[in-house]
Amino acid sequence: MGKILCAGLGPGDPDLISVRADRTIRAATHVAHFRKAGRAGQARRIVEGMLRPDVTELAMEYPVTTELPFDSPGYTKALAGFYDDWANRLADLAQGQDVVVLCEGDPFLYGSFMHLHSRLQGRAEIEVIPGIPGMAGCWTVTGQPITWGDDVLTVLMGTLPEGDLVRHARAADALVIMKTGRNLPKVRRALAAAGRLEAAFLVERGTMPGQRVARLSEVDGADCPYFAIVIVHGHGRRPEMPE
Amino acid sequence: MGKILCAGLGPGDPDLISVRADRTIRAATHVAHFRKAGRAGQARRIVEGMLRPDVTELAMEYPVTTELPFDSPGYTKALAGFYDDWANRLADLAQGQDVVVLCEGDPFLYGSFMHLHSRLQGRAEIEVIPGIPGMAGCWTVTGQPITWGDDVLTVLMGTLPEGDLVRHARAADALVIMKTGRNLPKVRRALAAAGRLEAAFLVERGTMPGQRVARLSEVDGADCPYFAIVIVHGHGRRPEMPE
Repeated sequence: MGKILCAGLGPGDPDLISVRADRTIRAATHVAHFRKAGRAGQARRIVEGMLRPDVTELAMEYPVTTELPFDSPGYTKALAGFYDDWANRLADLAQGQDVVVLCEGDPFLYGSFMHLHSRLQGRAEIEVIPGIPGMAGCWTVTGQPITWGDDVLTVLMGTLPEGDLVRHARAADALVIMKTGRNLPKVRRALAAAGRLEAAFLVERGTMPGQRVARLSEVDGADCPYFAIVIVHGHGRRPEMPE
Repeated sequence: MGKILCAGLGPGDPDLISVRADRTIRAATHVAHFRKAGRAGQARRIVEGMLRPDVTELAMEYPVTTELPFDSPGYTKALAGFYDDWANRLADLAQGQDVVVLCEGDPFLYGSFMHLHSRLQGRAEIEVIPGIPGMAGCWTVTGQPITWGDDVLTVLMGTLPEGDLVRHARAADALVIMKTGRNLPKVRRALAAAGRLEAAFLVERGTMPGQRVARLSEVDGADCPYFAIVIVHGHGRRPEMPE
């Protein structure tokens, strides 16, 4: 009787994987990872060179990504079926051996694995190994702390309505905005409306080859990679209280 | 000419330190860490057994912790002098060799290192190695994802005024509340006012020996460890959009 181990991969640099996840990945005989059809997949790229030569790899290819609107019935149905199928396959496989599922960043922070996790409850033993969230890799490479003292930090998706983005950008001291991509013009407008645009950074491929850190106000264009992250640092409400 | 490396230690389990930080700590000849006077210090405890036998250890003892109100002039002055002194000592030491500063969780997320970091600018080469934030260790051990889809996540300090806590608890889908300790009754009232108390978990020593996960509504008493973390999970606004 095996189990399913979800290994958080961290922000992208393989050197930032945890000791436990690193050991788990290197020992794995069965490794599953998500990818868009026809792509290598970011998770798989991170572990390049780490897998056993005799590993069995399972590429879980999303049936749909941006071809359908995310709120359409077709999109929801296709993804639900996809997660159902893979949950079944992984549950079957885990009867005989351990299966390691790769997950970028931290699995429980906006990760795709949770859709398998909810479907696998009671059907397999599951262990989740946390990872350094992608956003932590991104704020680290800006070279400035994200939060000090009593700062309020809010994490937002660029897919949210513009009014929601403005409201949260006004209420928090520090901001992380994920899922930027084609939402970049909306994010830029929302930050400007909240008076935060000049302080915002855009981080692409944080901790990875091709990393780019720029002031958002100086970035031209209406688009950026979907997984680029916008960072607005807090500046502290009071001195840190030590233990 | 050496440099100052700040190694994020993650949530507490040494197996959750990153591969790079683990290697850096094991190779270090000079290791500095914060602690309260008379205590072993949590950061030092995490790396027990990992340091070289010939390591030089520097315990940076806070001159004051909870003896003075955090907003008193005496508190601020004592801490500023403490950080000034240690920044000087570390800058001097880094002229001759590398110095590794240990930092629980992720150094740039509410970490004490940032007070040295700001003082060391231009005086020493500094490298920050990110870590898994303590809160990620805590939400992992609850066994449930913290955020799904487009959830808004807000991280709050229990030291904030009650009205601020209520307002943010109403506005966000998922919540993390740190610095609980003696603020626990206020945190409990604020979550109740926002209709979130029944969904809240209290995690003490997440990923460490003596770990405890409990529903906050079932926790008696007005106090808990200062570094215990309250978690309220989000439940998702829409399906996850894959890459």
